[in-house]
Amino acid sequence: MVSKKIAVLPGDGIGPEVCRQAVKVLEAVAERFDHHFALSSHLMGACAIEATGTPLPNETLAACRAADAVLLGAIGDPKYDHDPSAKVRPEQGLLRLRKELGLFANIRPVVAYDVLLAHSPLKKERIQGTDMVIFRELTGGIYFGEKGRTPDGEGAYDHCVYNRAEIRRIAHLAFQAAAGRRRHLTLVDKANVLETSRLWREEVREMAAQYPEVTVDYLFVDNAAMQIILNPTQFDVILTENMFGDIISDEASVIAGSMGLLPSASIGERVALFEPIHGSYPQAAGKGIANPIATILSVAMLLEHLDLIEEAALVREAVDEALHNGILTSELSPVAAYSTEEVGNYIAFWI
Amino acid sequence: MVSKKIAVLPGDGIGPEVCRQAVKVLEAVAERFDHHFALSSHLMGACAIEATGTPLPNETLAACRAADAVLLGAIGDPKYDHDPSAKVRPEQGLLRLRKELGLFANIRPVVAYDVLLAHSPLKKERIQGTDMVIFRELTGGIYFGEKGRTPDGEGAYDHCVYNRAEIRRIAHLAFQAAAGRRRHLTLVDKANVLETSRLWREEVREMAAQYPEVTVDYLFVDNAAMQIILNPTQFDVILTENMFGDIISDEASVIAGSMGLLPSASIGERVALFEPIHGSYPQAAGKGIANPIATILSVAMLLEHLDLIEEAALVREAVDEALHNGILTSELSPVAAYSTEEVGNYIAFWI
Ligand SMILES: CC(C)[C@H](C(=O)O)[C@@H](O)C(=O)O
Ligand SMILES: CC(C)[C@H](C(=O)O)[C@@H](O)C(=O)O
Repeated sequence: MVSKKIAVLPGDGIGPEVCRQAVKVLEAVAERFDHHFALSSHLMGACAIEATGTPLPNETLAACRAADAVLLGAIGDPKYDHDPSAKVRPEQGLLRLRKELGLFANIRPVVAYDVLLAHSPLKKERIQGTDMVIFRELTGGIYFGEKGRTPDGEGAYDHCVYNRAEIRRIAHLAFQAAAGRRRHLTLVDKANVLETSRLWREEVREMAAQYPEVTVDYLFVDNAAMQIILNPTQFDVILTENMFGDIISDEASVIAGSMGLLPSASIGERVALFEPIHGSYPQAAGKGIANPIATILSVAMLLEHLDLIEEAALVREAVDEALHNGILTSELSPVAAYSTEEVGNYIAFWI
Repeated sequence: MVSKKIAVLPGDGIGPEVCRQAVKVLEAVAERFDHHFALSSHLMGACAIEATGTPLPNETLAACRAADAVLLGAIGDPKYDHDPSAKVRPEQGLLRLRKELGLFANIRPVVAYDVLLAHSPLKKERIQGTDMVIFRELTGGIYFGEKGRTPDGEGAYDHCVYNRAEIRRIAHLAFQAAAGRRRHLTLVDKANVLETSRLWREEVREMAAQYPEVTVDYLFVDNAAMQIILNPTQFDVILTENMFGDIISDEASVIAGSMGLLPSASIGERVALFEPIHGSYPQAAGKGIANPIATILSVAMLLEHLDLIEEAALVREAVDEALHNGILTSELSPVAAYSTEEVGNYIAFWI
């Protein structure tokens, strides 16, 4: 029996509904294995702005710091996107949380599930067998460099900055992951143009000597954006900086046939955070059509992170069971759709 | 009868072979319409480094400035990519040429040819009817901002900078193109994170009032990277900054089924440049397997730019004829492949 504190940040849009199902699964695991998960819910994102004026209230940050792991639904509201001059934005909460918790590595597995191949926009023969993990640097680069307007108001700038230590700490994680998988690491960069990319390439090339069993490839990001679609099975572990990782990990998600299936882990200095890769999808909020599986698989990653390996395996089995038996939300099964709650109940019941 | 000066930069890898076929097509057009095209060939890229020590010799730049249009094959050699500390790189030649000629707008049409739908990695029903044009800003952003290493050697930086005038001049071209097409413009940015993106959004929003007939959408680049694969027919004109344009235009090229089909135009202050979107592909050089169609369609764009509309239409017809009759290089027709030269001859003969 273990006892763990888990901070839940349901967030905006469909975030709360998918979190509800994921919490149900966590509770089923606790009951089955006689664990104690102390779950507490906190505000972040647009909901936090509305309630408190700030996207990441101190109370939420403190709760995350005190937790063993954080589970996040999704954040964001289009009303802020359409106002470029908005001073307060939901995304600032997430970016600050990543920085404050030192979550420097975002890990996104992309798997093509055999039973769902027909749902992919890509031809089956191209994607069958796809099994890659993207390691995206999450607390550096152009996201966190200096940004602003020029004094005359005519210009704007964003500075992309990296140092060797930032590159090394995530590269070690990626090399280790590759060593435990198919021993192939691909660095995605733009070293023919960017100085930061040349620093990445230098460091990774140097570190490669410490991992002789891992084959290392280097791919320019424009080429990578093609290769991910043309031949996704060539990839095992992809390592890349923050902005490129944002783009190619979302791009790669199309392989699976639905964003609603893909989990992610953000790990770093201490506490780790787990979230589906999809956004808050406000158009779907409250309709019971959101797919809870990405969040439930994020729970599986969370359990693995807490060393609850058997528990995580059971959650994955339950998800496979749902997929195999067609217990699918509408984006995957338009004619015989199950609701968010029905999918959650099925998976929790199976545990 | 018109008389035009065209500077040809064959470049590296497969560049010279595809240019040879494109030149043949230009000559066929000249003969058929009794025009005079004064063609001269110049060094740029790795070949120029080898011959002169610099990727863009002064002679080449002067010839481009003096020309009515520039036709480029492809540049680049992996031996420079694998040496992050190389001081001289082929790409510097292309970047400097873009800057010197003021080529601020890179225009890339992406069309799904019906006869080639089977070659796309995407399912036919997703891509049929795709007809978009990507307007990529080409002389600003992180490509041309300050870049370097920190004094202690531990860090590197690349500055992304834009001003309103740079945004406006390309946005006007994109709005005008949209007005003459399906009247839909999509701005791709990352306005939820980047200050430069917020400047793009501000300017485009303001300019939209001048083009009331054009519907404007705003898409974050991560979402755009998905939408281009999930539902490419939703796009008409895409407008975006330099780095995002590099990534999503290469990504979008997979729709057509082969990079070997896609041309591009880079236009700006004076002389314009035309080139296939594919790279120098050194592994294929000299084998006679490179597809010359992307370069030949670049010639069609060049002719249109010189107001030789009927001539351009004939080149496009000739290409369609080749596609319809299966006169295809090996990436599109592995069992009954035609060589680079055979495809070029067929198209030139048809003119
Ligand atoms: C919401 C946004 C700031 C965020 C990012 O760009 O990192 C999101 O797209 C993601 O990938 O988690
Ligand atoms: C060769 C390279 C510098 C170039 C770019 O990134 O602009 C190429 O990828 C392109 O898209 O024309």
